[in-house]
Amino acid sequence: MFNSFGNIYCLTSFGESHGKGVGGVIDGFPAGIIIDEEFVQQELNRRRPGQSILTTPRKEPDQVEFLSGIFEGKSTGCPIGFIIWNKNQHPNDYNNLKGVYRPSHADYTYTVKYGHRDHRGGGRSSARETISRVVAGALAKLALRQLGISITAYTSQVGPIKLEGTYSDYNLDLIETNDVRCPDTEKAKEMGDLIYKVKGEGDTIGGTLTCVIKNCPIGLGQPVFGKLHAALGNAMLSINAAKAFEYGEGFKGLKMRGSEQNDVFYNNNGRIETHTNHSGGIQGGISNGQDIYFRVVFKPIATLLMEQETVNLDGIDTTLKARGRHDACVLPRAVPIVEAMAAMTILDYYLLDKTTQL
Amino acid sequence: MFNSFGNIYCLTSFGESHGKGVGGVIDGFPAGIIIDEEFVQQELNRRRPGQSILTTPRKEPDQVEFLSGIFEGKSTGCPIGFIIWNKNQHPNDYNNLKGVYRPSHADYTYTVKYGHRDHRGGGRSSARETISRVVAGALAKLALRQLGISITAYTSQVGPIKLEGTYSDYNLDLIETNDVRCPDTEKAKEMGDLIYKVKGEGDTIGGTLTCVIKNCPIGLGQPVFGKLHAALGNAMLSINAAKAFEYGEGFKGLKMRGSEQNDVFYNNNGRIETHTNHSGGIQGGISNGQDIYFRVVFKPIATLLMEQETVNLDGIDTTLKARGRHDACVLPRAVPIVEAMAAMTILDYYLLDKTTQL
Amino acid sequence: MFNSFGNIYCLTSFGESHGKGVGGVIDGFPAGIIIDEEFVQQELNRRRPGQSILTTPRKEPDQVEFLSGIFEGKSTGCPIGFIIWNKNQHPNDYNNLKGVYRPSHADYTYTVKYGHRDHRGGGRSSARETISRVVAGALAKLALRQLGISITAYTSQVGPIKLEGTYSDYNLDLIETNDVRCPDTEKAKEMGDLIYKVKGEGDTIGGTLTCVIKNCPIGLGQPVFGKLHAALGNAMLSINAAKAFEYGEGFKGLKMRGSEQNDVFYNNNGRIETHTNHSGGIQGGISNGQDIYFRVVFKPIATLLMEQETVNLDGIDTTLKARGRHDACVLPRAVPIVEAMAAMTILDYYLLDKTTQL
Amino acid sequence: MFNSFGNIYCLTSFGESHGKGVGGVIDGFPAGIIIDEEFVQQELNRRRPGQSILTTPRKEPDQVEFLSGIFEGKSTGCPIGFIIWNKNQHPNDYNNLKGVYRPSHADYTYTVKYGHRDHRGGGRSSARETISRVVAGALAKLALRQLGISITAYTSQVGPIKLEGTYSDYNLDLIETNDVRCPDTEKAKEMGDLIYKVKGEGDTIGGTLTCVIKNCPIGLGQPVFGKLHAALGNAMLSINAAKAFEYGEGFKGLKMRGSEQNDVFYNNNGRIETHTNHSGGIQGGISNGQDIYFRVVFKPIATLLMEQETVNLDGIDTTLKARGRHDACVLPRAVPIVEAMAAMTILDYYLLDKTTQL
Repeated sequence: MFNSFGNIYCLTSFGESHGKGVGGVIDGFPAGIIIDEEFVQQELNRRRPGQSILTTPRKEPDQVEFLSGIFEGKSTGCPIGFIIWNKNQHPNDYNNLKGVYRPSHADYTYTVKYGHRDHRGGGRSSARETISRVVAGALAKLALRQLGISITAYTSQVGPIKLEGTYSDYNLDLIETNDVRCPDTEKAKEMGDLIYKVKGEGDTIGGTLTCVIKNCPIGLGQPVFGKLHAALGNAMLSINAAKAFEYGEGFKGLKMRGSEQNDVFYNNNGRIETHTNHSGGIQGGISNGQDIYFRVVFKPIATLLMEQETVNLDGIDTTLKARGRHDACVLPRAVPIVEAMAAMTILDYYLLDKTTQL
Repeated sequence: MFNSFGNIYCLTSFGESHGKGVGGVIDGFPAGIIIDEEFVQQELNRRRPGQSILTTPRKEPDQVEFLSGIFEGKSTGCPIGFIIWNKNQHPNDYNNLKGVYRPSHADYTYTVKYGHRDHRGGGRSSARETISRVVAGALAKLALRQLGISITAYTSQVGPIKLEGTYSDYNLDLIETNDVRCPDTEKAKEMGDLIYKVKGEGDTIGGTLTCVIKNCPIGLGQPVFGKLHAALGNAMLSINAAKAFEYGEGFKGLKMRGSEQNDVFYNNNGRIETHTNHSGGIQGGISNGQDIYFRVVFKPIATLLMEQETVNLDGIDTTLKARGRHDACVLPRAVPIVEAMAAMTILDYYLLDKTTQL
Repeated sequence: MFNSFGNIYCLTSFGESHGKGVGGVIDGFPAGIIIDEEFVQQELNRRRPGQSILTTPRKEPDQVEFLSGIFEGKSTGCPIGFIIWNKNQHPNDYNNLKGVYRPSHADYTYTVKYGHRDHRGGGRSSARETISRVVAGALAKLALRQLGISITAYTSQVGPIKLEGTYSDYNLDLIETNDVRCPDTEKAKEMGDLIYKVKGEGDTIGGTLTCVIKNCPIGLGQPVFGKLHAALGNAMLSINAAKAFEYGEGFKGLKMRGSEQNDVFYNNNGRIETHTNHSGGIQGGISNGQDIYFRVVFKPIATLLMEQETVNLDGIDTTLKARGRHDACVLPRAVPIVEAMAAMTILDYYLLDKTTQL
Repeated sequence: MFNSFGNIYCLTSFGESHGKGVGGVIDGFPAGIIIDEEFVQQELNRRRPGQSILTTPRKEPDQVEFLSGIFEGKSTGCPIGFIIWNKNQHPNDYNNLKGVYRPSHADYTYTVKYGHRDHRGGGRSSARETISRVVAGALAKLALRQLGISITAYTSQVGPIKLEGTYSDYNLDLIETNDVRCPDTEKAKEMGDLIYKVKGEGDTIGGTLTCVIKNCPIGLGQPVFGKLHAALGNAMLSINAAKAFEYGEGFKGLKMRGSEQNDVFYNNNGRIETHTNHSGGIQGGISNGQDIYFRVVFKPIATLLMEQETVNLDGIDTTLKARGRHDACVLPRAVPIVEAMAAMTILDYYLLDKTTQL
């Protein structure tokens, strides 16, 4: 139940960072979609560690192997099994973690909940788990592309360095031109410098991602407990280190009165549109045809390359220092994950919406 | 599927603002719990309109009638049906809405999605829908009380007026002593004055609620797609007008590095605890025994008592002015709703956690 | 979770035989369907006790009251709440049951499972629970009628008296012309006489119902765990007293070899059809456009009007004799229930099938 | 949604007969259970083709490879991914099937439903899909063993040759001593001879399996739509070629009146038991502590080694003859599959039952 995401379009994932591999089963993918495996691999490459000096130097090829559900290059409507073998494991790197609870990690809570823990690299709570999401998200994007729907995320804040404008103020084509994945190239440089500096200090830093969904049909979303923004929020908060979600004006809206925040309808040559889009493309939990945009806050990664106090499994105070290879900032590599979760959500809701009328 | 909330403990709700009534079916409530109907009614009274000069003067008695699942004062384990009849309907108040799309309401999106709309008072998208949540939340609270778990929400910001401290800086017993439901009595007065002023101008204003869950057992939450905070976020974002959710440090954490935000473990007389609680009581998606706290942003209510531009059903530009009886700020009455959604979520996850080990 | 039936089209029901009423919430009903309330009431009347000398003389009006989800005579796409008030309760009839476990009833298992039991008339395990199903089934029939799909059940066996032919050997228009609901009027008389005789002896008798679904589109069903016949079987076995389910040739097929039971395809003027229909209209779990037919076995009702041995709540041996008003055979009144469950299943799978391709 | 089985203990499966492999993800398996991989392999061997002269001579090793969720020999509570690689593929065997619809197979219905078909060996509708079930069933058995619950199935009928007694009349230890898996060694020989003869004629034959669950705790099952026998029926009807399900007396009960079929309670030295067990261990949908037993009818396998008429993809009449390697009777190899589905169901309901009381 809880390693599955989605209602109709549904990913069930498995795998730990230092087991044999990660993978999953994708169910409910529409039949007859051309599977562009190269595109799926490109998405995985965007998530992969070791892409730049900003990210961990671990080189994990993360090659996806599809096992079923595809025949002669097209989806058959049957479940798509897939696996990404773990290749570059350094289980010994984690021997020093065996006996301690790492601060702000899942170690302690897993141990209490399950009574039995795989300590190697965080086990199931490792970021490698998100590989399966990127695969399912890439397939969803292939289906959404046929519908003309696009999904784009970018880094909008790193620590105190922040893009002041909203998504429409930037040229989103520039996102992939820098390591930080920020459409403002100047700010991107500042952010990159900061991450590099923080990394040198053995510390980590957080930030925000912004995501925009363009060309979403009107009518996606279920009015009460399946509001489209609640589904997106749930999707985003399921990503490791996510601490907050806002859509439309979100927190900024606190400065506005109702008369300022309402999006007034007008007739745009026969099409009903809104002058403003403070609502973020969703009204009453249902998409209204305007751009959907939201923001996700990620805290600094909990694994530090400096010494920290903690307790060991017997509850005795000790200290801990992680070894080698860790990102100082989750943001750049989280971009494809945010896009993947959004793509899965939109495709799921698109399929669900087909059942609204006979 | 989408008028249900919860996995094991599950509310399925029905009802529109100007139909016969609102109600629902509560499934999965543990057998043998004493049903304190007076407590349920008190919770409904906290949500009810017309409690103070700050809220709409509509006096809706909102009397719950239980229809099943209770025998000799205790839950039987069978589904609990209930209804709250609509008594104080003024359908004529809404005649002027029949032909127009209200700005930032669900009118337009419902019409496109369903092709057939109940325009009276917002129909299903009305705030009356939350009555069913308060009933299911009150029952959940009765069960959680037996486990020693408490859930408390309060108004922490109205427009620019904001509590600077966190929940532990306040005496939460003061929350219900003022109409705004704010534990800082001085700030409460300021907030109340602002709401009153905004109301006088025919306008509306937003704000934030903070919620704290005390004494939650360690181990609730599912690691990947069922993280406890994602479930809470989904629950909160399902409430009308909610625009953002953050837990633990949330947005504030953007100012901290990993070395500052990590919660260091220590041995507190044999119990493993953390010195700080930046994580908000949840690590790796699982409760760690510390207080769980989060914040929800509500936008200003979209219904204004001033004239607004909009279009009618034919897409022709027109103006609109709502009549009588509307809140200028959703916050005070949203407090019991936020608590109810949190209580339902925690009970559901408590029951789920029982299946983790044989 | 377990008082809900269906994936997209979903009934969640509540209510005990001697509580205030029975009812439920219908979710996922397509928007824009004309709600013929008279038809719904007719279906309830077919299920009602006291229709004939064969059934219990209790006269329960069983008037449905819709509470939401319908506006101006059409479904809005919002959940449809409904209630049927219990009017003709005789709780005192059951006082003698308070302290004993009735043989082959749910009394004992409920008490162990829940620790707290509503003994009046069987509580939740009463046949009155099926009223909600008939309401949801009637709405499903209204939607299926628009698609040209019809569902018809009839009594095909009572004790040893059995229709030898299959559904296509009978004029199904005759079903409602007799109290037994059997299309063979002569056999119907025999069956009726037998039920009357058994009733006079204070005993009960079982039998079988046959159900046929005509004009079902090709393609409904999910290949592995959601096979159409498995969904129908699950639906039928959820009806009280159902002990077996077979579709197509079922048990009879044990006499045939593969070469006899296979349904050979042929080209019927451009349409692919099968010469025979041993498969019962479903191949590989998916409808193939031929008639779907199946049979359900119902055991004799456990409530007898004669003395039986049993134990009381303290485990002490005692005897028991039920009072007044009970059916001697569940078959005639089960006909509309079987149809209702089949209609709900087919509508649910019809809606699901819409998500198979983009 | 439809390649998953179970609520809490849940298998999601993937794979086609002639793709890379079959496998799945097992979610909700309790943490801390010792994984006896040898036992899992033995169960797979029981399902494997080529075990005896009665079954297809294809030798498929069907070696399971676990990919996650197990650490130091125990389940961790995380999802268990697994794969069984397809090794002995003969895709050319199926080239002659590419252009035709095989009678009583899923070919035609799949093609209409999905518009795109993997014709090789039946693709997803192949019996190889059940391998994943046997793996998940074997794990469930390991958990149930800790609870003292045992599940045993056997062949009780092949064509007209039938065991007259019920399960308690036989020594179930003899089941695995013959190729037919029948506890009556004499009848087993007759059955085996019949299967061998039918096979020689290029034909196939059906039969029934009986399954008994011993030592099931009282209280498993959900009263209305989640009745234990409905869950078992749904599980059994999801197996290829299953055409009927009966539990307790089932069809035989048609010969009994209520006074004969009721199971009378008595006090067996302080334990409440029933003299008879016509109910099959389930009353009101809930286990009552007596043995649970049921029977499943399997039709003859549709693939014949003789010529059959059919149509090709263009709807033109043609003939078809399958090549080599096919079982003439599904029964012997279906025994472990029936046990697996029963084991998964019972474990799932056992875990669910833990949520009934606080």
